[in-house]
Amino acid sequence: MIIAASFDVNKPELWVNRGLSYGDGLFETMRMSQQTIPLLDLHLNRLNTDLGKLQLRSLDRAVIDAALKQLDQSVGTQLVGDSAVIKLYVFRANQARTYTPLTEHVEWLLTADEVPQVNSKKALKLAVAEQRISQQPMLAGIKHLSRLEQVMLSAELNQYKGIDDLLLLDKDNHIIETSHQNVIMIRNNQLITPNLGQSGVKGVALQWLQASHDLQFQHISIKDLIDCDGMMVSNSIRGFRLVESVKLNRKQCISFGTSHPIHDKISGHWEALFNS
Amino acid sequence: MIIAASFDVNKPELWVNRGLSYGDGLFETMRMSQQTIPLLDLHLNRLNTDLGKLQLRSLDRAVIDAALKQLDQSVGTQLVGDSAVIKLYVFRANQARTYTPLTEHVEWLLTADEVPQVNSKKALKLAVAEQRISQQPMLAGIKHLSRLEQVMLSAELNQYKGIDDLLLLDKDNHIIETSHQNVIMIRNNQLITPNLGQSGVKGVALQWLQASHDLQFQHISIKDLIDCDGMMVSNSIRGFRLVESVKLNRKQCISFGTSHPIHDKISGHWEALFNS
Repeated sequence: MIIAASFDVNKPELWVNRGLSYGDGLFETMRMSQQTIPLLDLHLNRLNTDLGKLQLRSLDRAVIDAALKQLDQSVGTQLVGDSAVIKLYVFRANQARTYTPLTEHVEWLLTADEVPQVNSKKALKLAVAEQRISQQPMLAGIKHLSRLEQVMLSAELNQYKGIDDLLLLDKDNHIIETSHQNVIMIRNNQLITPNLGQSGVKGVALQWLQASHDLQFQHISIKDLIDCDGMMVSNSIRGFRLVESVKLNRKQCISFGTSHPIHDKISGHWEALFNS
Repeated sequence: MIIAASFDVNKPELWVNRGLSYGDGLFETMRMSQQTIPLLDLHLNRLNTDLGKLQLRSLDRAVIDAALKQLDQSVGTQLVGDSAVIKLYVFRANQARTYTPLTEHVEWLLTADEVPQVNSKKALKLAVAEQRISQQPMLAGIKHLSRLEQVMLSAELNQYKGIDDLLLLDKDNHIIETSHQNVIMIRNNQLITPNLGQSGVKGVALQWLQASHDLQFQHISIKDLIDCDGMMVSNSIRGFRLVESVKLNRKQCISFGTSHPIHDKISGHWEALFNS
């Protein structure tokens, strides 16, 4: 459901915008619990940093706070209860019809959806995607609206049975992320995550982890997985989950444990954010 | 203005779709003249071929014909006169909220805008973009809705004075296209255009040219331009225009003529399509 927007959502012409036409914008998917968004500051910091990269103006925190208050007071609370997935879309405002960005002004839209049921204790099974994720340093790390590549990479998931997510590599065979989660390796109690300078999204859960742990960004190849003691995936809605196995091809598979004390500790801290 | 759509455009919730959320769709930008779209068949053929690549169902020609008839009968004719830019958006229909494509059904939207004033006789000045276009064979050639990369590449145009468009290279330093046009070189009366197997959009004007001319798709580097007798750019709205010069950097520039008999002939045939 739509909670609020910077434009009159009842005017159809205003929906034919640069978000739809070009994917010229960003989004944040945020977990609301007990009517607050514990990581709102991290989400808005990332959003505003990345808006700057797209030559767009920052969004004022007060605008979003006011919009979220509407959710409390509206039918929203009845619909979604205490918890919700709050999605914030921000896109370049209307301008002359050309790819060239001619304005820094933005429009925004805020929606609420149900929180998906997630069992954070269940370890996941991954498979390596055959298709490769592209390299574009200009957009690397940014959670932007032009996500057709992720959609088409994810289409491979339809070929598999019993696989929860795909591990995406670039053309240099470096691990980047899964279709919708960051990847964190545990090796000798050290946390290692792929370098995101060329591809991928730098998730808010990963940034939250980085604030409290020594997290090393490195090039990681499939063969490096063999030396690791554990593997996790993370995103802002589903938190931190262990990876049980990575299917490399029809014959080969790398297996990890289904429990690890470092995961238990991180996941415990994470869940406490939303259940305190 | 909106002409027609497959969904009720007065319901705001229906605009929060996979086109806006993920750029999970395609578009065609078509030139209407004297209330017909001379290249409608070519546009719909390309659209349907590329819908297949995205695992989406073809659009029925009759649906679009019926929608275009509404334009004749509505206020559209008064607004846009005989000529218009007709834009057709097609995107994946609603499904469970995940990148993974779970449906082949589509929604569509048809809009009309004014035709931009174009002087097809004026040769253009290009500059080579510093940033590189990415390589993704899965999406190469397709005119999809995830165009943020083109937007950000085009942002470089704001740095220049007197430059009409940017020439985009990939990381192998192959010429791919301009920010919104295909590129065609003339060498010894032979037409050569960049290989679009890794990047770029295969435009309808280029496909129209291919139907009547021997057009060779090749890897083309900047140094290859020196051996060429002429250079053209093309797209379905602006037709075929000559390139007068390509600025390589602060000091170097490659110049071409401002007229060439092959361009005059092609451009003449093209304009006749819309003025007969």
